[in-house]
Amino acid sequence: MKKLPVSPLAPEAFPDIPEIPGFRMAVGETGIKYNNRPDLLFLASDPGTVAAGVLTRSRTRAAPVDWCADALRHGQVAGLVVNAGNANAFTGQAGITAVETTAVTAAALLETSPKEILIASTGVIGVPLPVEKITAVLPNLHAKLGGQGWEQAARAIMTTDTFPKGAWAQTELGGAPVRLAGIAKGSGMIAPDMATMLAFVVTDASISPAILRELVRRTADRSFNCITVDNDTSTSDSFIVMASGRANNLPPQSPDDPALAGFRAALEGLCVDLARQIAGDGEGLQKRITVDVRGAASEAAARRIGLSIAGSPLVKTAVAGEDANWGRIIMAVGKAGEEASRDRLQIWIGGILVAAGGAAAPDYDETAIARHLREREILITVHVGIGTGRARVWGCDLTNGYIAINADYRS
Amino acid sequence: MKKLPVSPLAPEAFPDIPEIPGFRMAVGETGIKYNNRPDLLFLASDPGTVAAGVLTRSRTRAAPVDWCADALRHGQVAGLVVNAGNANAFTGQAGITAVETTAVTAAALLETSPKEILIASTGVIGVPLPVEKITAVLPNLHAKLGGQGWEQAARAIMTTDTFPKGAWAQTELGGAPVRLAGIAKGSGMIAPDMATMLAFVVTDASISPAILRELVRRTADRSFNCITVDNDTSTSDSFIVMASGRANNLPPQSPDDPALAGFRAALEGLCVDLARQIAGDGEGLQKRITVDVRGAASEAAARRIGLSIAGSPLVKTAVAGEDANWGRIIMAVGKAGEEASRDRLQIWIGGILVAAGGAAAPDYDETAIARHLREREILITVHVGIGTGRARVWGCDLTNGYIAINADYRS
Repeated sequence: MKKLPVSPLAPEAFPDIPEIPGFRMAVGETGIKYNNRPDLLFLASDPGTVAAGVLTRSRTRAAPVDWCADALRHGQVAGLVVNAGNANAFTGQAGITAVETTAVTAAALLETSPKEILIASTGVIGVPLPVEKITAVLPNLHAKLGGQGWEQAARAIMTTDTFPKGAWAQTELGGAPVRLAGIAKGSGMIAPDMATMLAFVVTDASISPAILRELVRRTADRSFNCITVDNDTSTSDSFIVMASGRANNLPPQSPDDPALAGFRAALEGLCVDLARQIAGDGEGLQKRITVDVRGAASEAAARRIGLSIAGSPLVKTAVAGEDANWGRIIMAVGKAGEEASRDRLQIWIGGILVAAGGAAAPDYDETAIARHLREREILITVHVGIGTGRARVWGCDLTNGYIAINADYRS
Repeated sequence: MKKLPVSPLAPEAFPDIPEIPGFRMAVGETGIKYNNRPDLLFLASDPGTVAAGVLTRSRTRAAPVDWCADALRHGQVAGLVVNAGNANAFTGQAGITAVETTAVTAAALLETSPKEILIASTGVIGVPLPVEKITAVLPNLHAKLGGQGWEQAARAIMTTDTFPKGAWAQTELGGAPVRLAGIAKGSGMIAPDMATMLAFVVTDASISPAILRELVRRTADRSFNCITVDNDTSTSDSFIVMASGRANNLPPQSPDDPALAGFRAALEGLCVDLARQIAGDGEGLQKRITVDVRGAASEAAARRIGLSIAGSPLVKTAVAGEDANWGRIIMAVGKAGEEASRDRLQIWIGGILVAAGGAAAPDYDETAIARHLREREILITVHVGIGTGRARVWGCDLTNGYIAINADYRS
């Protein structure tokens, strides 16, 4: 497969992410699928690190996801191993053994229990993972564990991604400054073949596993659960947050502790940033679409309506064609299965009202809309006229590039 | 917009449909959107005709759909008016008035109540319907009502369809031979702009509205609810069956009356035929996909898994690329949200087992699969390993043609 051109929505540069106390990492090359590029990330964390995650709800999820679900149950973690190029999904008993072998090897190096090692794999489905290529490299990476080369780490987990994705934030929690840093990969939502969504965030905050779990769940609903490239869900999607406690802050008492306000906002902002980067690297995209939904029965209803719009092939092709075809937005609202008022519904494109009162808005400015549709960032706003639920969702247009990538991919 | 090439899956010829006693029809040209082609169908039925229908569940459905929902409540009908080129959807109070005006005009011509006139419209959304162009033509059509030009009727309701869709059947019911005939249009599932799914079936059977309603509901679940082109649902989708009673058969006593077996099968067969024709005219398609799902928790679960597979952009692009990428089928089973056993799941492509026991089938014949994937009709079979529910679903591949049609459409 030839190298894909970098997405026109890629950030100008990878962010300058600071060190996060409590974490060391290294990347290496296994040669499982790629040549001459890192494809293995080994991240080690200080004793006392806790973790929480949101994992794919697919009924055919991969062996590493089953493993993480187990490992995250008690919340204590010591490390993370991620490989790109082979998802170790639908690989039967051999796949389960491969995960165990990786965890045992990493745990021995870190002198901990295998149950404290998280594992993630992304890449082709149904091809046995040559785990010996991973275990052969891990000792070298262990010896190199150290300063955080975030961009290298983000690159090591890429598959069809055209740019590495990273973000960071700093805030205050329980009397101490805390920092968060994260990387993600994903280029379809989600081409299971090579474009699973993975996101890993680390922080030096001190926080209990139970509270972290609740924060992670809520954050996912406002970030990674709000993006769509093709409505397809991977067998491997994973979003994991690890907290080392090295900031020595006063730990929050509950997920709703007012002291968490800053941390919650920082985590959500960071994850939205990563999620938008993923939507901005959608396979074949030329434009990113932001859908703002207001007036829905609930936040969840607003999210589903937003995803119905951003995920509609007809809306996506209309955006690709720079066509202000708001009839398709109405269709997508209607098919979302959520309460909506046909007669109170309002639709704006690029901030210009195009439909209201059950009909086209009289005399809207076609030229201004056409100008907006020629831009890279397209904004669709919908008020569904029911309640106060709102959500923001991100997607991208659908072009021949998507088909070229996915029709030819495996061969 | 330039004329689209006829689908490679089009039948060789329109079927030779016989007359169905109790129905007269005529087609005409309104000039609303198209030039030099019929775009209006007027169908009149004998007194005593009953009808039942399944209408779009869209929350933003069009005014004619609201009208039909009302009209179908008492089940007696006298006629049907269908126009193509303008969906009269999201057209506010003017749209409601347009429907009423059409019904009043048709009812006056047929000397009946407006409530006995069914109305369907397909075409662009959000553009006011110039109803006077319809009412101006209806008297001429009324004067011409007569022999059933089924192919002309099927052509009059086309929008982006590349071929007219018709089917018929004959069977026996309550001691008498009965006939059924139907036409349909649709070329996306469903591009609301110009590719709503409409299907109209008439029969001379004598059957109560309540029993017909139940039959229509069950039939829809095994035909029109089993197709997907792009997962998009129109604001206007309608499937209506009208029964004139002219066959003078002994009416069935309940929807489960054993005497209905033949009629039920004939109706289902006819609707499956029309549904497959719609899937075979999917915008830009090169191949039709049939997905056979077995071993699901229920028939409804099987249908949802089938639609998840046939509707997945990644499966559709893989088929377009003639790539036996069964990992994507596993992904689509996993994301359907229905019970499935990863370890008992079995997948066949063109009848060849490719995955079983949680892994790739050992040594399957890649050459035979590649040969199958070069054909026009692609068969995917899945056993999900849970229960006895089964369903068959139809879709098509996703090509650059779909994008070309939908990105450029409105402009």
